[in-house]
Amino acid sequence: MSHSYIAPVELEKAYRLLNHGPTVLVSAQHGDDCNVMAAAWACALEFKPAKVSVVLDKSTKTRQLVEQSGYFTLQVPCYAQLNMTKQLGTISKLDDPQKLEHCGVELFYQEDLSSPLVSGCIAWLVCKIIPEPHNQSAHDLFIGSVVGAWADSRVFRDGHWHFQDAPKELRSLHYIAGGTFYLIGEEVKADI
Amino acid sequence: MSHSYIAPVELEKAYRLLNHGPTVLVSAQHGDDCNVMAAAWACALEFKPAKVSVVLDKSTKTRQLVEQSGYFTLQVPCYAQLNMTKQLGTISKLDDPQKLEHCGVELFYQEDLSSPLVSGCIAWLVCKIIPEPHNQSAHDLFIGSVVGAWADSRVFRDGHWHFQDAPKELRSLHYIAGGTFYLIGEEVKADI
Ligand SMILES: Cc1cc2nc3c(=O)[nH]c(=O)nc-3n(C[C@H](O)[C@H](O)[C@H](O)COP(=O)(O)O)c2cc1C
Ligand SMILES: Cc1cc2nc3c(=O)[nH]c(=O)nc-3n(C[C@H](O)[C@H](O)[C@H](O)COP(=O)(O)O)c2cc1C
Repeated sequence: MSHSYIAPVELEKAYRLLNHGPTVLVSAQHGDDCNVMAAAWACALEFKPAKVSVVLDKSTKTRQLVEQSGYFTLQVPCYAQLNMTKQLGTISKLDDPQKLEHCGVELFYQEDLSSPLVSGCIAWLVCKIIPEPHNQSAHDLFIGSVVGAWADSRVFRDGHWHFQDAPKELRSLHYIAGGTFYLIGEEVKADI
Repeated sequence: MSHSYIAPVELEKAYRLLNHGPTVLVSAQHGDDCNVMAAAWACALEFKPAKVSVVLDKSTKTRQLVEQSGYFTLQVPCYAQLNMTKQLGTISKLDDPQKLEHCGVELFYQEDLSSPLVSGCIAWLVCKIIPEPHNQSAHDLFIGSVVGAWADSRVFRDGHWHFQDAPKELRSLHYIAGGTFYLIGEEVKADI
């Protein structure tokens, strides 16, 4: 898989990668153990310094790796990854140690960061946990500061999404329930 | 404005109103003082009991009313309300006491709840604050438990969104930046 389309995103613009409410994939690695799960409950939390939040249930393997490593990556999957996204949100690595192979996940790394990124996504935010024991235990809520952000320049450039000019396969996924998602649709502009 | 399409949503399904990441309007009332602002940073937090989170900046009038009353309503605006949504997110009632009139907002109330709802939206979640002083001060993050939920049955029924069968004017808005939004698009289903 080629990564030639991947371009860095200024950290102060990283919130725009999540602003339109896409479902994300959460990845994490501790030692040699890496994993990925789907998450609809991810959100931007602060512009500068860029922060995000994500809900990670106590039953997930991904949460264990996030807690062990102190890092997580949020990445935005696209229509081409619909089945993979569903599977990453259905299978647990606690039940299937070969989860990533079975889901067809290919990982890569940026620069000197040890957090894994999922190939074929359209945006990535590598985040360092801000420890919040109450939020983590009472609400399963993890807050992270964004330490690196990248996007696929075919759909995100100059600080904006450009879905309308790109192939449908690159549209973000917005989860409903079961196996049902919506694709992001048409761009509209307020004229006031 | 007719409210004949509005149907209650089971609280355990209320998260589905936010799951696909729409931009919301946040309304609140204290005594006779009511207000509405736009918020892209709202998210579901728990299925049961249903909980949500929303980021409310310290500079907003809406936050003052939320803190004073202990309640907020999240509602999902639609394409027909594009300009109103932009304006509600640009003008502060602290600067313009006639903000709601100037933005064309019409409010209504459900049953015995004193939280105002914005007419013409496609879903509403009335929420009671779970007091979290640290989250509110450090992260501007408000957590609420959902005490009532309703949706426009033309686009949400049987626990699912049905955007594809409804007029485009009823599609949810997904904020990017400036005056630019995307409409929610096409429904797709994982086949695995
Ligand atoms: C589209 C989708 C979105 C999901 N969103 C979340 C979420 O926001 N938080 C969460 O804890 N689980 C969420 N899940 C469930 C996890 O992805 C699921 O439990 C997964 O199997 C955990 O994998 P793991 O144990 O290998 O980490 C979602 C599932 C799907 C299909
Ligand atoms: C589409 C959109 C989304 C916004 N999202 C948020 C948000 O999530 N949190 C926030 O504090 N402000 C957000 N804002 C800014 C507030 O809506 C804005 O400050 C508003 O004027 C506050 O109004 P008030 O002072 O009358 O309450 C957003 C603005 C727009 C246009």
